[in-house]
Amino acid sequence: MSRFWNPLIKKLVPYVPGEQPKIQDLVKLNTNENPFPPSPKVLAAISAATGEGLRLYPDPDASALKATIANYYNLTPDCVFVGNGSDEVLAHTFQALFNPERPLLFPDITYSFYPVYCGLYRQAFETVPLDEQFKIRVEKYDGLNGGIIFPNPNAPTGCLLSLDEIERLLKVNTETVVVVDEAYIDFGGESAAKLIDRYDNLLVVQTLSKSRSLAGMRVGLALGHPELIEALERVKNSFNSYPLDKLAQAGAVAAFEDDGYFQQCRDDVIREREALVDRLSAMGFEVLPSAANFVFCRHAERDAGELAAALRERKVIVRHFMSERIAQFLRITIGTSQQNSKLLEALEAILGSK
Amino acid sequence: MSRFWNPLIKKLVPYVPGEQPKIQDLVKLNTNENPFPPSPKVLAAISAATGEGLRLYPDPDASALKATIANYYNLTPDCVFVGNGSDEVLAHTFQALFNPERPLLFPDITYSFYPVYCGLYRQAFETVPLDEQFKIRVEKYDGLNGGIIFPNPNAPTGCLLSLDEIERLLKVNTETVVVVDEAYIDFGGESAAKLIDRYDNLLVVQTLSKSRSLAGMRVGLALGHPELIEALERVKNSFNSYPLDKLAQAGAVAAFEDDGYFQQCRDDVIREREALVDRLSAMGFEVLPSAANFVFCRHAERDAGELAAALRERKVIVRHFMSERIAQFLRITIGTSQQNSKLLEALEAILGSK
Repeated sequence: MSRFWNPLIKKLVPYVPGEQPKIQDLVKLNTNENPFPPSPKVLAAISAATGEGLRLYPDPDASALKATIANYYNLTPDCVFVGNGSDEVLAHTFQALFNPERPLLFPDITYSFYPVYCGLYRQAFETVPLDEQFKIRVEKYDGLNGGIIFPNPNAPTGCLLSLDEIERLLKVNTETVVVVDEAYIDFGGESAAKLIDRYDNLLVVQTLSKSRSLAGMRVGLALGHPELIEALERVKNSFNSYPLDKLAQAGAVAAFEDDGYFQQCRDDVIREREALVDRLSAMGFEVLPSAANFVFCRHAERDAGELAAALRERKVIVRHFMSERIAQFLRITIGTSQQNSKLLEALEAILGSK
Repeated sequence: MSRFWNPLIKKLVPYVPGEQPKIQDLVKLNTNENPFPPSPKVLAAISAATGEGLRLYPDPDASALKATIANYYNLTPDCVFVGNGSDEVLAHTFQALFNPERPLLFPDITYSFYPVYCGLYRQAFETVPLDEQFKIRVEKYDGLNGGIIFPNPNAPTGCLLSLDEIERLLKVNTETVVVVDEAYIDFGGESAAKLIDRYDNLLVVQTLSKSRSLAGMRVGLALGHPELIEALERVKNSFNSYPLDKLAQAGAVAAFEDDGYFQQCRDDVIREREALVDRLSAMGFEVLPSAANFVFCRHAERDAGELAAALRERKVIVRHFMSERIAQFLRITIGTSQQNSKLLEALEAILGSK
């Protein structure tokens, strides 16, 4: 620790992302990336933008991308915010749209970046326990709060809330902002974007890293009432005028335009997930109902940490969280059919060996 | 204004970047971009990285890029931080390395994003007037402060401080961090990077947007003692794990590796600048001594706002700041020889017409 650090820095407990190993031939099922490549049209759009024009600044307002997203969700562009990955969009949301003096509410088991943002922006928070089936209990979010945030489907459980349940939350909490973090919504849920014209306290956050296979490009977005979007723009324009580079803007536009490719990859991931759930269940795993591109499961007899380590020895990496209530679970990203087969073969060998 | 806004948001006065017009055939000399394209090797490296691998997250630590930059400056990688443009690097610096309760010191005429960051992070500040020749007076930065920041060369003046003058500041202010913002250093100054091993309170910030022709890609960096870098990493890892996408990392590595191309473009810009200074002086402009890729000048007889408007009518855009002390100046980016000729022709027509 240095005498030059701002007092805030000493107290920060930074987020630890899933490993991005540089090992070859790994079956990488640990950070919920899409097993399919980006659309060929996305790669073509990026290539077309790779040229002399990179000497110039990108459009600071990403107008073309906002118009494309607005059109896709049947909204106006002033209901759309874009950022350098949904993590940046979330960070600006924490700074702009919560009441720091009242506790922000989020589930006890959820995206572990939320408490980190609270540290960065001195936001008070309280966690609300999931029920016994690891589902969000919307009726527990009724008290005085500085805002509400949760992923839908939740991470790392994969469990989905219905739009009816989300509407209940929006109606009860009219004085604070409810953020629905839809990183995984395309894999089995219905977006709350359709509720935006009726609830001025709703912010929907999405990413192109998962269902659109662009984790390597860093594009996230928020949808909401223009007054909520304006708050995010004010923070963004006080932080970094140009968060999205030219290639990210070009690729993201093409990703929304090639809807056929998107739907096909999404359907393939869902089909692979259902097949994987059947096989894991047959092997003695309890698998939580997943609407995401991953499953969250625990084995009736075998320790999760040991299973993760044994898988790693066989060059398959999955995610294991140390947090108490979920210490016996593994979070496994849905891979291609080949990757999932390798996972299952490795698990069979491990489980059969004892 | 919305009832959902955090109180901070209501008080923010966001930064207004120079215009990025979508008009064709414009001579765009308003945002200090490089008139030359990125190195062909940079474009090749970006193209090589544009493929299936974009479905995966980038290296969150940008290890290859940090190693390249460290090698370039003869430092160790733990002295290097990278971010999504130098504006993001500066934002993290404001949050991590200044004492918010004592005034940060910076020049009265300087990069106008500094007071915006102060608003975002509730940092107290005081401005220190430039001298009559618009030069930074290092002897005026001796008092109690929460940190010091200035561009070198300064923006929008282009005036340079010597390393001796910077060392004087570092020796007097041993208890606070001195940030030297070297966005334009390659066009005529000597980087303070060589002082890092002797001063643990020095942070040097640079960008690839200017001398390396990559404004469209958003890459910035900071160099300093590992304890200062660690503070920036702690904020970055509490904000966004993956600020630099895969293509930006690949392009930035290639930009530092192709030093021959970099030097040739830099030399061409400097030669064009000297020629432009001569011509502008002959036309009745007072031009401040510039070590940057722009000149800051005022005409003895003609109003700067009127000149900027008349140039715009002739499809040449330059930057005019409304701030009182510099309201009669124009900031003109150095273009290609062809662009500079068009600027001079337009100015001749305007000045001759009265």
